[in-house]
Amino acid sequence: MNQERIEQEPLTALAIQALESYGLSKDHASKTAQILVLADMFGLHTHGVGRVQSYGERLDLKGINAQADIRIERCGPAISKVDGNNAIGPLVGQVALEQAMSQARETGVAAVFARGSNHFGPVSPYSFLAAQQGFASFICSNASITIAPWGGKDARLGNSPMGFGVPNPAGDPFLLDMALSVAARAKIRQALQQGASIPDTWATDRDGRPTTDPKLALQGFLLAIGGHKGYGLALAVDLFAGLLSDASYLTHVQSWSENPEAPQNLGHFFLLIDTARLGSMEWLGGRMQDFARILHDTPAADPQNPVIVPGEIELNRYRQAQRDGVVVPPDALAHLRRRVG
Amino acid sequence: MNQERIEQEPLTALAIQALESYGLSKDHASKTAQILVLADMFGLHTHGVGRVQSYGERLDLKGINAQADIRIERCGPAISKVDGNNAIGPLVGQVALEQAMSQARETGVAAVFARGSNHFGPVSPYSFLAAQQGFASFICSNASITIAPWGGKDARLGNSPMGFGVPNPAGDPFLLDMALSVAARAKIRQALQQGASIPDTWATDRDGRPTTDPKLALQGFLLAIGGHKGYGLALAVDLFAGLLSDASYLTHVQSWSENPEAPQNLGHFFLLIDTARLGSMEWLGGRMQDFARILHDTPAADPQNPVIVPGEIELNRYRQAQRDGVVVPPDALAHLRRRVG
Repeated sequence: MNQERIEQEPLTALAIQALESYGLSKDHASKTAQILVLADMFGLHTHGVGRVQSYGERLDLKGINAQADIRIERCGPAISKVDGNNAIGPLVGQVALEQAMSQARETGVAAVFARGSNHFGPVSPYSFLAAQQGFASFICSNASITIAPWGGKDARLGNSPMGFGVPNPAGDPFLLDMALSVAARAKIRQALQQGASIPDTWATDRDGRPTTDPKLALQGFLLAIGGHKGYGLALAVDLFAGLLSDASYLTHVQSWSENPEAPQNLGHFFLLIDTARLGSMEWLGGRMQDFARILHDTPAADPQNPVIVPGEIELNRYRQAQRDGVVVPPDALAHLRRRVG
Repeated sequence: MNQERIEQEPLTALAIQALESYGLSKDHASKTAQILVLADMFGLHTHGVGRVQSYGERLDLKGINAQADIRIERCGPAISKVDGNNAIGPLVGQVALEQAMSQARETGVAAVFARGSNHFGPVSPYSFLAAQQGFASFICSNASITIAPWGGKDARLGNSPMGFGVPNPAGDPFLLDMALSVAARAKIRQALQQGASIPDTWATDRDGRPTTDPKLALQGFLLAIGGHKGYGLALAVDLFAGLLSDASYLTHVQSWSENPEAPQNLGHFFLLIDTARLGSMEWLGGRMQDFARILHDTPAADPQNPVIVPGEIELNRYRQAQRDGVVVPPDALAHLRRRVG
């Protein structure tokens, strides 16, 4: 596939203009574009500016509110709730992140619970922005239902993304960004588009039978990592991001694809810790560098594939994107240009 | 195996006396015993009063400090550090939990980082105590190294336990308590004691080859759930519980079995959220009951094994133990009686 490189700034400007063309204010479009462009810089193209088109379809259908009035309710010195008013997801995520950073700066730790939101993109751009300000983070969101409970044969919970970040004043932060299925639904969609089959460990069909057909898999549900353990973790994410935040949870989450015009009422959870409260930057940087060194020094099972620290691949791509421009899927770029046209 | 039932109160009194016989103060012994007895009531016997013997061996060797002076350093309104001074693990856990509850009551959320600790038992007793006071929790600890990094062939990180809890004013709290390996090391030790073999997905030998021999597995390392995902989660736990808490991490953690006389300097992380800040008890209870109902109503793949909510099995055992007495492994009980006798 032919891929174009474009500098971060013009790409961001293009994404902002494209989002404005769907009715978002400049401020809302800017906050949203920052997350999507970071996703592309990290190489997470299934969650990058390519999403402007799918988000845009729901904005056009009024399934997402382009003129959202996002409200912050402070529930205590270290805790807040955010009502996204059905805004575009990355915007609600950014508002929640900023609120959590502001409160964690005051108290050392803060938790923000967001509701009335939509798909907020990948987790790592948020953890990255937090790490740049010295915050360790635990961030998660619930999602459209695609996973069956352990031992059940009906999809009742989402393949919720979760992530952890730890800043490193002396080098790369730790950035873990994962969903709780063996493979992401986006990967199955990719296989379908490419006419490829999938491993039978990724998903089942609608009757709970493992399948290698991406089409049947998209009608069925994903399999969670570690059986009952991944099931438990997915529930924990839904409880923190959905139930406690007063958002939808489990089967109450509306399907994006089946009901694109209905508010999803997704929820997010942002926990931030100000690492400056725990020790100096020298202390933290020294320990983080030592931590990475111990992992990198592990003898590799396959010498061609050395042991890596989560976030490393994304941050290497990020630096390359800063240097050489951002790789963007051509159809995503074409859509942005059409909107701005 | 012949199993005796004993009431919660006399069992607790016995465990306290046995711990005092190793030099712990009455207060320290009481806090420790509460966790171990809860573990037995939950049916988690590998982490129950049977641990008094193995903890006791290290207390006798001065590998654990029986006269520890535990210090709390308040680093901000919502954040503290605890220096366990090499005390017995469940005691450090209880001190950290109490500090986190006290600060979270003031600010809505609190994080406590503990260092200078040892094996703190299972997570669910702590999450249970927190849930009884209305706190949602994320609690984890690092551990002796048993897992190889993803793609590596040397054990460099622990099979760290992590858990989430959410209170339910109208019924059972959600209690997830898991380690990040496919199976627990204690289960492999059990197989060795029973002369049984283990599935080849549980662990590898010291050269990184999957094995069914529990003896070789105990010399090798455990396999994490979901490949690189479980690896990433285990690292996140080690970063929050170990690195950020100023405890040991990765290969710096001393082996309990190889160096029983050396301080392990394990670390724990306690995050508590006061759910009363988020809504009323009616609101939370209604949502938690609905959440459980949706899961229980899922058609089961095997009608003999209905879908369950994490914590359910343990809490049913807990109620039975309250009613009929606590089941305790006979050798564990015999050891307590010998110490007191």
